Amino acid sequence: MQTEVRYYQEPELASAVMVCGLPGIGSVAWLAVNHLQKELHAQLFAEVLSPMFSPKVWLGEDGVVGLMKGEFHFWKNKAGGPDLILFTANEQPYSPEGQYELAEVALGLARRFGAEKVVTMGGMATDRLSEPPRVYAGATDVSLVKELEGLGALKLAGGAITGTNGLVFGLARPKKIPAVCLLAETPGYLTLDANAAKAALELFSRMLKVTVDLTALEKQAKENADAVQKAKDLSRGFPREVRKGGDRELPYVS
Amino acid sequence: MQTEVRYYQEPELASAVMVCGLPGIGSVAWLAVNHLQKELHAQLFAEVLSPMFSPKVWLGEDGVVGLMKGEFHFWKNKAGGPDLILFTANEQPYSPEGQYELAEVALGLARRFGAEKVVTMGGMATDRLSEPPRVYAGATDVSLVKELEGLGALKLAGGAITGTNGLVFGLARPKKIPAVCLLAETPGYLTLDANAAKAALELFSRMLKVTVDLTALEKQAKENADAVQKAKDLSRGFPREVRKGGDRELPYVS
Amino acid sequence: MQTEVRYYQEPELASAVMVCGLPGIGSVAWLAVNHLQKELHAQLFAEVLSPMFSPKVWLGEDGVVGLMKGEFHFWKNKAGGPDLILFTANEQPYSPEGQYELAEVALGLARRFGAEKVVTMGGMATDRLSEPPRVYAGATDVSLVKELEGLGALKLAGGAITGTNGLVFGLARPKKIPAVCLLAETPGYLTLDANAAKAALELFSRMLKVTVDLTALEKQAKENADAVQKAKDLSRGFPREVRKGGDRELPYVS
Amino acid sequence: MQTEVRYYQEPELASAVMVCGLPGIGSVAWLAVNHLQKELHAQLFAEVLSPMFSPKVWLGEDGVVGLMKGEFHFWKNKAGGPDLILFTANEQPYSPEGQYELAEVALGLARRFGAEKVVTMGGMATDRLSEPPRVYAGATDVSLVKELEGLGALKLAGGAITGTNGLVFGLARPKKIPAVCLLAETPGYLTLDANAAKAALELFSRMLKVTVDLTALEKQAKENADAVQKAKDLSRGFPREVRKGGDRELPYVS
Repeated sequence: MQTEVRYYQEPELASAVMVCGLPGIGSVAWLAVNHLQKELHAQLFAEVLSPMFSPKVWLGEDGVVGLMKGEFHFWKNKAGGPDLILFTANEQPYSPEGQYELAEVALGLARRFGAEKVVTMGGMATDRLSEPPRVYAGATDVSLVKELEGLGALKLAGGAITGTNGLVFGLARPKKIPAVCLLAETPGYLTLDANAAKAALELFSRMLKVTVDLTALEKQAKENADAVQKAKDLSRGFPREVRKGGDRELPYVS
Repeated sequence: MQTEVRYYQEPELASAVMVCGLPGIGSVAWLAVNHLQKELHAQLFAEVLSPMFSPKVWLGEDGVVGLMKGEFHFWKNKAGGPDLILFTANEQPYSPEGQYELAEVALGLARRFGAEKVVTMGGMATDRLSEPPRVYAGATDVSLVKELEGLGALKLAGGAITGTNGLVFGLARPKKIPAVCLLAETPGYLTLDANAAKAALELFSRMLKVTVDLTALEKQAKENADAVQKAKDLSRGFPREVRKGGDRELPYVS
Repeated sequence: MQTEVRYYQEPELASAVMVCGLPGIGSVAWLAVNHLQKELHAQLFAEVLSPMFSPKVWLGEDGVVGLMKGEFHFWKNKAGGPDLILFTANEQPYSPEGQYELAEVALGLARRFGAEKVVTMGGMATDRLSEPPRVYAGATDVSLVKELEGLGALKLAGGAITGTNGLVFGLARPKKIPAVCLLAETPGYLTLDANAAKAALELFSRMLKVTVDLTALEKQAKENADAVQKAKDLSRGFPREVRKGGDRELPYVS
Repeated sequence: MQTEVRYYQEPELASAVMVCGLPGIGSVAWLAVNHLQKELHAQLFAEVLSPMFSPKVWLGEDGVVGLMKGEFHFWKNKAGGPDLILFTANEQPYSPEGQYELAEVALGLARRFGAEKVVTMGGMATDRLSEPPRVYAGATDVSLVKELEGLGALKLAGGAITGTNGLVFGLARPKKIPAVCLLAETPGYLTLDANAAKAALELFSRMLKVTVDLTALEKQAKENADAVQKAKDLSRGFPREVRKGGDRELPYVS
């Protein structure tokens, strides 16, 4: 079986920005892109099926089978700003080669639909969380880094970003697509850190001048915080992993 | 070495249904398809040789060497119902890519011989076994799920199915081949759960209106139950893995 | 890098038999083929270079670098019996796919030079060693098994043979090349079991009516036995692994 | 994604020698080639991007993203000796196949730019360090080994060299490119052994009659030695790993 991209629509996009949100630490990027998709009512237009995903299928609540796959949604911006391509997947490919391949697929699609910028997100695990979480930013050139610092991000100076979110970001550079990476602080023990996703999206909104209602993320963040507090009380300060939806329950976006 | 499908016959099949039974938990699917093959005197018509199987060969009782491989048998239904294609293999491919590849090979063959439906089976490990074991069903669309519920299955709502049996099921969907998955409850500690295989086959028979004599499976199930009871008595209630044929003794079907 | 077969000569062979001796348990096959090569003064005529071998190189005593590779030597039989193709390698490929690939390469070459039979060898680990070690035999058809039983081999009834030696044997069957596998008993704790290699070669000689002087193997077997005895005496009966040439010292054949 | 070599210049080189310095034990080769590059002001002319590198990206101090990659720099020798091609990378490929592939890429480029010799380096871990460290040498033929012995190297008689540095060396042989390997003694617990790199470079200088200022390496070696001594004093003789730049801090060369 070869990797296959299936196109369901061929949207005409203007000054498009691709936003990449694969699952990763705290599911920060995944939550953020998932939230954008729901709030903006973005439309599915392409899917990637591939043996680079795990050899398994999942069942919906209705007993209907679904595949592991990547999905691309688009959103036409009626306010004059950039259109969006939202890229996400049920999981990151299990092999290094698969991660490179998926990043190439995404960037190929970005180019095909004229994306002028790529935004990737992620979580940065830290023991010293700020509230709200700080957002670190890196980019494909110095002027983009400075622009993001001007919007409130801290410069991501040094370090490595692993996985597909990192590769989509980095491989944009030799392809001459300007790209940024926004990493929000996350404590590391949260499976779904809505608070970090909200912080990343706030910076995203300021950068692209796209207004997004963040109420749903705020609500989820509040619930998480309450659950963490309760766990801390029970265990006398030892924070446990609070799973509001663990791996098995990770809701599928479609 | 590339994967190679060898055809020994080109059967003309009418309204064929492919039944997929690779080894898996409790060997439920493998036992069920193996039983169908013997009872219906299905004929071998194709084999898959591939480096996606383990790098080993096995010896028969006569000292003749055999390869790890997949096999396809067919059965012409003289009672007017669907013809059957039975797909099984000595083992599941060891790599994720191999599992995707074998699933693609099977579905390609299903299409080539005009299969109109795919049935996969499997075991669902549970601590709370019913007697007879319940059968859970998922499908490629809601109407098939409802049809199976009408035949006594429980809806498989949520969860994941790993391995080649799951991929044959799931990949049928983008190929527009209606497919169902029947998972029979199994305690998890049985290597060959004939009782679960019987439960899955009973539902299969009702669905396809194919009558199959299940006496041999019943006999094996009874022997297993006796052995489990004996083990429980010996260990004062601690169920041990009862191997009536472990991995090494898994009889080869040909 | 792709697998590459380099031909140095194109020998004209009559009724050739390919003898396969990759390293394996007790290095039985490797020792046997290595011995044939030296005693018969067989000539190198082809090599396989491939990324399916480990990513390393080795240095000779003269400081000159050598690659991990497979080698093919030929021997013209002046006594009227079959010519021989001797196939060996520094190691078995590290991946399952590599093992299948190397087996295919060897069988492709066997066919190209008109081999009419393939002989693979190996060790069979056992706690109940006979002296001399018994030799078990399997084949691609029942008549070959019977022929080998007639020559003193025991039938290999059941069990699996893993690795490239097994695959060369098994994959010969769908290619319609008659093949046999000779497994000599070995205690499992010897790195180089010359005694087992001698037993396998004796059967080989009877089967092909090729006379080979086995004195060098006998001498090595005697030294091994003495060393094992000494180790047993020292450890009061606990046999240690006696390495007359471990992995690092495995002499390279060229 | 496929491996891709990007050429930024097509230098005309005379009697070129390729010097290969991938990270390895003690980072000896990497330090040596890195030092050559800085001291000779060699120019970047080609890069290799490939999924055979780890699926990650790194950030510079300026927040700009960089990829895992191989780099080729050239240096025109105005003193009449050989021009140099310097080959290095952030890391060795993670898979055996990747290591073979990168070695092939490097040797392909060596041939394309007319390299007449390949020099690889490395560290040889030892408990019995000499001061200065001894340098062992192997080559693709006996006369080169003798030449290196004449220059003060010890013959590398026996043993294996693993990884890409070894493969570039060994695969040069079937490609008929004369190649040498210089291994400097290193204690094994140093992440960056500047002292060993210096020893290897001194032999390299004598062999190619290329003069290189080694002051910077000497300074770093001195600092390492002081740090090791301090660690020994603190731990009463137990040498700890002294990291003047661990894996995470390994400065990227560009």
